[in-house]
Amino acid sequence: MKLRDIGEFGFIERIKDGCLIRDENVISGIGDDCCVFKTSAEVASLLTTDMLVEQIHFLLEAIPPYQLGRKSLAVNMSDIAAMGGTPKEAAISVAIPDTVNLGLLDALYDGMKSMAHEFEVNLLGGDTTASPGPLIINIALVGEVREEEVLYRSGAKVGDVVFLTGPVGSAAAGLDIILKGRGSDEWGELIEAHHNPHPQIKTGRTIASMKVANSLIDVSDGVAADLGHICTESRLGAIVEEKMIPTTEQFRAYCEKFQEDSRRLSLHVGEDYVLLGTVPAESAAKLQEALASNGCHFHSIGKTVAGSSLRLESRDGSVEVIGASGWDHFR
Amino acid sequence: MKLRDIGEFGFIERIKDGCLIRDENVISGIGDDCCVFKTSAEVASLLTTDMLVEQIHFLLEAIPPYQLGRKSLAVNMSDIAAMGGTPKEAAISVAIPDTVNLGLLDALYDGMKSMAHEFEVNLLGGDTTASPGPLIINIALVGEVREEEVLYRSGAKVGDVVFLTGPVGSAAAGLDIILKGRGSDEWGELIEAHHNPHPQIKTGRTIASMKVANSLIDVSDGVAADLGHICTESRLGAIVEEKMIPTTEQFRAYCEKFQEDSRRLSLHVGEDYVLLGTVPAESAAKLQEALASNGCHFHSIGKTVAGSSLRLESRDGSVEVIGASGWDHFR
Repeated sequence: MKLRDIGEFGFIERIKDGCLIRDENVISGIGDDCCVFKTSAEVASLLTTDMLVEQIHFLLEAIPPYQLGRKSLAVNMSDIAAMGGTPKEAAISVAIPDTVNLGLLDALYDGMKSMAHEFEVNLLGGDTTASPGPLIINIALVGEVREEEVLYRSGAKVGDVVFLTGPVGSAAAGLDIILKGRGSDEWGELIEAHHNPHPQIKTGRTIASMKVANSLIDVSDGVAADLGHICTESRLGAIVEEKMIPTTEQFRAYCEKFQEDSRRLSLHVGEDYVLLGTVPAESAAKLQEALASNGCHFHSIGKTVAGSSLRLESRDGSVEVIGASGWDHFR
Repeated sequence: MKLRDIGEFGFIERIKDGCLIRDENVISGIGDDCCVFKTSAEVASLLTTDMLVEQIHFLLEAIPPYQLGRKSLAVNMSDIAAMGGTPKEAAISVAIPDTVNLGLLDALYDGMKSMAHEFEVNLLGGDTTASPGPLIINIALVGEVREEEVLYRSGAKVGDVVFLTGPVGSAAAGLDIILKGRGSDEWGELIEAHHNPHPQIKTGRTIASMKVANSLIDVSDGVAADLGHICTESRLGAIVEEKMIPTTEQFRAYCEKFQEDSRRLSLHVGEDYVLLGTVPAESAAKLQEALASNGCHFHSIGKTVAGSSLRLESRDGSVEVIGASGWDHFR
């Protein structure tokens, strides 16, 4: 069955069920010109939006639509996590080419709903339209956080400990495996990291509520680029120790087996959606403890310094400027 | 100059100026993982999103990019107007094909900024990415309204007066003129209606603050389809008198000159972005007066009735069911 058999409004009826996960504070959901909801007086609102374009961000032949649905919501939730917030209400726009069948769309929305359910996010509205070419998914997500807890890219201070909240490189290796046709059970964890990232909401909330970290960002463009954003916005530099960068055993095995450049994959590709931040040295242990007691992770990888360059200390002790190169859609 | 010469982050730097129109309540704008703002405690939040896709919603050779920028924000603002609200904070996603040059993008953003400025809306964030084909613009817009003033599609009661807040058909005629290559100064108003719709925020606010109207929607899909939405959501029917449908002199002249179907253009195409609502008969005069004293318009076009069909009384007195056919992207 094709979309044209049921029409735009038939499609909205079809996907409507299961979109309202949490009715607290929701005044009106899907079905009007806007959705309507209340925000608590004591919090600030967060707004983020991300567009996923077929052939640019994903290949329909490479990612199962259910995973694509989960991921499209996860990448937005990760932006909320990077501010220390809690995701709340989402609006989804989809432009659908004629070649896409209803089964694929059902799986796509089932994926979004499963992710929404996991994090108690409502899918409150959106827009559906035809596309002359690629499948396009845009999600706008509203979240909330207490104003005094918001974490910015711009708050890092010289001498801060730079930390990661999970391993990096796995998603990049997963993409590498897919693109090079090396998919097998052996690399299941890496492929999963690429297809099914987990937004670190609990980690972000723990860091925010501790009120000790100076800056936070999520690793979407790669550690080098994202730490570069913190450095630029905070007007300082950083030095990172390669041996401290957390990676998984499977990641290291993959790089070794195929002689892939582990430094490039772990620092310069991205899509790991772990958090990257800075915390004053005297508070690092306290933050690590709080994260550990919530089942979250903290890996010190370096420190912020005066200046503006981002440097990497290699395993052999040599230091080189690695700049801030990460993913740029237009270069 | 092309986008690839300045890169994604160079582009964000380029467009950043002029995006913050009103700094009241804004905690952080463009440049972090999310934008951050405060919402007043006494209002409800509204969220809407609309995606404009090249070849589906617009042709780059037919609409000047400045107008396209204005329109892409206007259609979202119109959704806020239809709820009785005030637009506040916008997040813009753009997927840009390699063929689009920086001059076009500058004009596109200048258009968005001019519309934002006119209505004191902030452009607080967004996402920019490459596109393998069409230019795609998605805007998510947050607005606000007092909870007791929100106007829904579902509130109409049998016996309500059905009203429009401006002429219809002009935008449809404008598109017809463009598609048929009939553009000339003679039809300037109609082409302008298609390219540069004005969201009726003041009209919507006036209706909402009067608290007498039972339902409201904006005319995006066409009077028949949009009144159909009110009827469906309110579980009733309506009868509209053709002779009462407000159109402009230029619209009538165009239809007469080219023997175009004025009924189709005025009722079944849409994109007029005027408001369509219902109000109890005893309050219609009071609402009309309030609108007039604010320089806004009120045209009674019919009434709601029991049942579920949407009927049209023609100029000759005959009545026919016109259903609810309007624009459906997938049919």
